Amino acid sequence: MTVSDAERAARAQLLRAAEPGTGALLRHVRLVGPAQAVADIRRHAPIAGLDVETLATRLLDVPGDRELELAARLGARLVCPGDDEWPIALDDLERVDAGCLALWVRGTSRLGDMCERAVALVGTRAATDYGASLAAELASGLAERGWTIVSGLALGIDAAAHRGALAAGGQTIGVLACGVDVAYPVANRSLYERIQQAGAVVSEQPPGSAPHRARFLVRNRLIAALSAGTVVVEAAPRSGARSTARHAAELYRHVMAVPGPVSSILSAGCHQLLRDRPDAVLVTKVDEVIEQVGAVGDFAERVSGPVRRRDLLGPAVSKAFEVVPVMRPVAVERIAVTAGMRPDAMRAALAALEAAGLVESRDGGWCMSKEGRAERRGGGSAVEELPLGWW
Amino acid sequence: MTVSDAERAARAQLLRAAEPGTGALLRHVRLVGPAQAVADIRRHAPIAGLDVETLATRLLDVPGDRELELAARLGARLVCPGDDEWPIALDDLERVDAGCLALWVRGTSRLGDMCERAVALVGTRAATDYGASLAAELASGLAERGWTIVSGLALGIDAAAHRGALAAGGQTIGVLACGVDVAYPVANRSLYERIQQAGAVVSEQPPGSAPHRARFLVRNRLIAALSAGTVVVEAAPRSGARSTARHAAELYRHVMAVPGPVSSILSAGCHQLLRDRPDAVLVTKVDEVIEQVGAVGDFAERVSGPVRRRDLLGPAVSKAFEVVPVMRPVAVERIAVTAGMRPDAMRAALAALEAAGLVESRDGGWCMSKEGRAERRGGGSAVEELPLGWW
Repeated sequence: MTVSDAERAARAQLLRAAEPGTGALLRHVRLVGPAQAVADIRRHAPIAGLDVETLATRLLDVPGDRELELAARLGARLVCPGDDEWPIALDDLERVDAGCLALWVRGTSRLGDMCERAVALVGTRAATDYGASLAAELASGLAERGWTIVSGLALGIDAAAHRGALAAGGQTIGVLACGVDVAYPVANRSLYERIQQAGAVVSEQPPGSAPHRARFLVRNRLIAALSAGTVVVEAAPRSGARSTARHAAELYRHVMAVPGPVSSILSAGCHQLLRDRPDAVLVTKVDEVIEQVGAVGDFAERVSGPVRRRDLLGPAVSKAFEVVPVMRPVAVERIAVTAGMRPDAMRAALAALEAAGLVESRDGGWCMSKEGRAERRGGGSAVEELPLGWW
Repeated sequence: MTVSDAERAARAQLLRAAEPGTGALLRHVRLVGPAQAVADIRRHAPIAGLDVETLATRLLDVPGDRELELAARLGARLVCPGDDEWPIALDDLERVDAGCLALWVRGTSRLGDMCERAVALVGTRAATDYGASLAAELASGLAERGWTIVSGLALGIDAAAHRGALAAGGQTIGVLACGVDVAYPVANRSLYERIQQAGAVVSEQPPGSAPHRARFLVRNRLIAALSAGTVVVEAAPRSGARSTARHAAELYRHVMAVPGPVSSILSAGCHQLLRDRPDAVLVTKVDEVIEQVGAVGDFAERVSGPVRRRDLLGPAVSKAFEVVPVMRPVAVERIAVTAGMRPDAMRAALAALEAAGLVESRDGGWCMSKEGRAERRGGGSAVEELPLGWW
């Protein structure tokens, strides 16, 4: 599947016509396609839930092909669904009715490749030394292990995370709330330049757009969607990092938070997250982040003693193995309830277990395979036996 | 029910004959009673799982009535099951086959009364300033709200917790791994004296006993059992506080841990606890501890706006209310699985909801009462509407 010039131009125009994440426009585009949606706006056809007059006025500013041409001069390209470098992770946004029409990208690396193993590190602009150095340390460690660091190029935690990734020679993505040609905030200008050499800056906003509050919030969903999990490093209670974490959870991404001194108001947001979200996991170092977002087998190196197959599985997968019925197949939704996991997480865990040959799908449900039953007889609960520092 | 002099003397002798928590002896006492158990040991009758010779030798040291007389001179009394001041919470230890035969007590307050609202604060001997000041602060705040502070009278976190309770004019219990007449460690001597004025020191060890490693571990189960919950303030990974927390969980007590800087090895044990035990709750202040251990209604003061009955319920109870069936009664065990709660915790939550008139017990199961259904129709999920800083 390739994206036609006309479709790309239409998507560029739609990004200019409406703010990103405008549900009514996304639904209309799904229905009639981007080119027809632009035509409908141009002829002021009524579209449910949209102020078409305003959209039409905004369209007049720059024609779509001209937009692409101007952007190309700035070194920016529009990555669209269907492009080779489109990150399929963004398609998950459709499920929560907050899809992404296309992404402006400025940078040398291919976006989709970078997102295959990506973690978001986010947090307060007013970071303490504690938070900033931790963000940099985590980012460096994750980048060394091949993970792309996604963040928002804000001051504080975001900047420290990008810097940590760059220092380790890793890849990093800056997700902007303004145009990809706008170096905002000014204090991060050199960082903004360096990110484009070692990764990319991306945005749904057309080139030239200024950042403002609503755009930061809409941008946060992209940070969550582009990553396998979001780590909140330091955050004031009820801060923006909370919105990123909520998006992450809605998208079935891992939500993590770093603890800190209880006397620090900038750790209070992390503690609140850990108290209030049963799905949020406390992390203190790189290994613990990878334990969440990593694929099956990422822990093999830490195993000592005889290796059983399920020793190689992460905690979520082990938990799934504990609750999957031995013989009689049961629907994934019911297994998920038993484990206290989300159905999507359970589906992913069962897929991993199936790949490991431990479970099988029969009669519309899941149960253990013959090998799984042999493995289980191997003894004890997986949680107790996982050599991951559990106790 | 009163305890006869003979039974009290026999229990004193049994505490001298065997180390506390010796399961085989406890089972024999349950079978034949304490006086007969002493007689059996004296005549060297074989008792399954016990080295009766050694027990008999130890019995020769001090006869039971003489033991009580000597102890009385030291101001110590033996509190036995059946005594008015016996803390019924200790009976829970029977369930995990680690019962307590009796407790030596030295102090002015009645033990059972003190344990009605008691929280354990425990942690490392090598406390940092951060940990020690937090322990003292939490203890003071809890003591001011009428909670007894239980700890182990060790250096570091334990001592800070006892001091915090005393500073607030509250009650505190020191649970010793040596005799109640032994001021150990020496550095805590004045604290040991003050605790006896404002609470009690207690021990299963006979007067004169020296502390040693195994005794500290067995003692930890008493700290857990005497309290509604245990807060680990600071702990090295794999430390003794972990054993107290494990005992607490086994006894269906609340397990809590205070976070700290990830760079502090003495917060690492707390973080490990929070990562590894799904039942462990992160706490940073007095209100959050009381939110766990407090009874229904303890949060009324924090409610703003129109007060609905279930606004007064704690998170565990609210969760229970969310999963209890509307019409068709379901067994408590199944409801517990749905909520991901322990059956005992669910039973307690349902009892609280029944007291509030929101659920009823029918046909061997539980479902909502008419009032509960009206309450639920009031809107939204309890979690989202609880005005406790949830988000």
